[in-house]
Amino acid sequence: MKKLVAGIDIGGTNTKFGLVDSTGNILFKEMIPTDHFPIPEDLVTEVCEHIEKAFHPFAPNYQLAGVGIGAPNGNYFKGTIEFAPNLKWQGIIPLAKLFSERLNCKVILTNDANAAAIGEMLFGGAKGMNNFIFITLGTGLGSGIVVNSEMVYGHDSFAGEIGHVIMFTDGRQCGCGRRGCLETYCSATGIKRTYSDLLISKHETPDSDKPADAKFIYDKAFSGNGNAIEAFNYTGNILGLALANSVAYTSPEAIFLFGGLALAGDFIFKPTIESFEKNLLAIYKNKIKILPSLLTENNAALLGAASLVWKEIK
Amino acid sequence: MKKLVAGIDIGGTNTKFGLVDSTGNILFKEMIPTDHFPIPEDLVTEVCEHIEKAFHPFAPNYQLAGVGIGAPNGNYFKGTIEFAPNLKWQGIIPLAKLFSERLNCKVILTNDANAAAIGEMLFGGAKGMNNFIFITLGTGLGSGIVVNSEMVYGHDSFAGEIGHVIMFTDGRQCGCGRRGCLETYCSATGIKRTYSDLLISKHETPDSDKPADAKFIYDKAFSGNGNAIEAFNYTGNILGLALANSVAYTSPEAIFLFGGLALAGDFIFKPTIESFEKNLLAIYKNKIKILPSLLTENNAALLGAASLVWKEIK
Repeated sequence: MKKLVAGIDIGGTNTKFGLVDSTGNILFKEMIPTDHFPIPEDLVTEVCEHIEKAFHPFAPNYQLAGVGIGAPNGNYFKGTIEFAPNLKWQGIIPLAKLFSERLNCKVILTNDANAAAIGEMLFGGAKGMNNFIFITLGTGLGSGIVVNSEMVYGHDSFAGEIGHVIMFTDGRQCGCGRRGCLETYCSATGIKRTYSDLLISKHETPDSDKPADAKFIYDKAFSGNGNAIEAFNYTGNILGLALANSVAYTSPEAIFLFGGLALAGDFIFKPTIESFEKNLLAIYKNKIKILPSLLTENNAALLGAASLVWKEIK
Repeated sequence: MKKLVAGIDIGGTNTKFGLVDSTGNILFKEMIPTDHFPIPEDLVTEVCEHIEKAFHPFAPNYQLAGVGIGAPNGNYFKGTIEFAPNLKWQGIIPLAKLFSERLNCKVILTNDANAAAIGEMLFGGAKGMNNFIFITLGTGLGSGIVVNSEMVYGHDSFAGEIGHVIMFTDGRQCGCGRRGCLETYCSATGIKRTYSDLLISKHETPDSDKPADAKFIYDKAFSGNGNAIEAFNYTGNILGLALANSVAYTSPEAIFLFGGLALAGDFIFKPTIESFEKNLLAIYKNKIKILPSLLTENNAALLGAASLVWKEIK
């Protein structure tokens, strides 16, 4: 009997879910607002009803082989979401258990960046790679590290927080309470701050009434604006250094960049790669690729979630 | 038939080798000067003759199950030593092949810090741990990272160069050609530099004619000397930050410190642990141990080398 896997991506705003076959085709997808469900059990019921309904036409030929979940602060070992600041649910939520009780199948849960990294390995640009790093440049900087073909979860399931490596001890204030974390520079939030700081340092006035966002800065860079290009160069310079340092830990074959900032193409990749090669230890130079993710913004979370199960049953 | 493993540690000055049983007992050990052998084949012949002779009395009851080699710039995947700056041998030396041709058994080679990390896992304080980091504080700073019970070799076998993580972009000149590498601060060489810089900044004259070494600084600290204690605090402060950043990659259960500086006890552990906890991301605080290695200076290299084979056949 052929198999399908359900992928579920729990986000602060929306929960996306769908059915994914073994080659990464999404046969069905749907979205509901996470914050309409103050009680996690109610969201589980709603999502399961949709999945069961969607699976029904496939039932004669397919088996639902499992459910993969990407979630903020997801604990792989325990199948729980733990104290996620962007969710209304307080404390520790045994989400994998809730889904497996209802759907009676294998459920695997981890954080969204780890899930997307496995998605890249099964269905994206990291096919066939045993050692790589996956970086998401979104509001913050998330990461998933793969070593010897396995996700690095570490002792407590919370490995791969490269966004919280301290780059400068007296650096920018981070939401985590410390200073100088990589994500305060290299993320959508970081480049906004950089661009704004640049304007202030040059005593220039903002070019629009609303605060610049990453897309706005990209559009400015594309039209040749010097400050916007400088903001990308500054971001890439720090990101390249951080990635060069990362190589000293796991010496990956490639590093994938995903997320809004990564869509800025050469504006971000060129300064990042220049700084990366400049800062690499000699033994690593010119042999590690920095590549755009081959997952699309739209499908990465869902494919990543489903790939958690596909990786184990393939 | 019971098994024995030969461990060989190739150093710039001496090559140590011996026979090790499955519980980490060293049944025989010997040392010859590496630099007396300008041609690696001659060293291989000499070491093998010693090993064969030493193994002879065990031959009725034991089988020589393999040879483990720790060597500078050792490539695990290829079994080669590659361009090791501290050895007279130029270029790429297929050392594993040379030994296996002569002794007709399995030969595993990696760099000395990785070997010692595996030694810690099999015969030291990391028994039963699946995720830990091993740091050697010697002339430089070496490291071995274990994830999911496996050594992290990375794509090219050169993972685990934490000593060359850039801590300060405008920092101290490193032997690798770059600036601000961790090992320029946190190593025997690093603390000598720190101590010397302290004296200069305070316009104090050195307390002896010969340059202070790490042992001298330890003795001064032990006798209550403020500058020596300050040098240890400075070193531990940077080491703690670097280890806190390391946790963001692999979230280990423990970090082991080995080597001369680690023998300074509280002088190095106290400031390191204080800085470590201060700089950790909240989710990691108060749950990761920083521990002294349980391997002795004398036997670590040999046990580590032998453990490469014991890990695979156990």
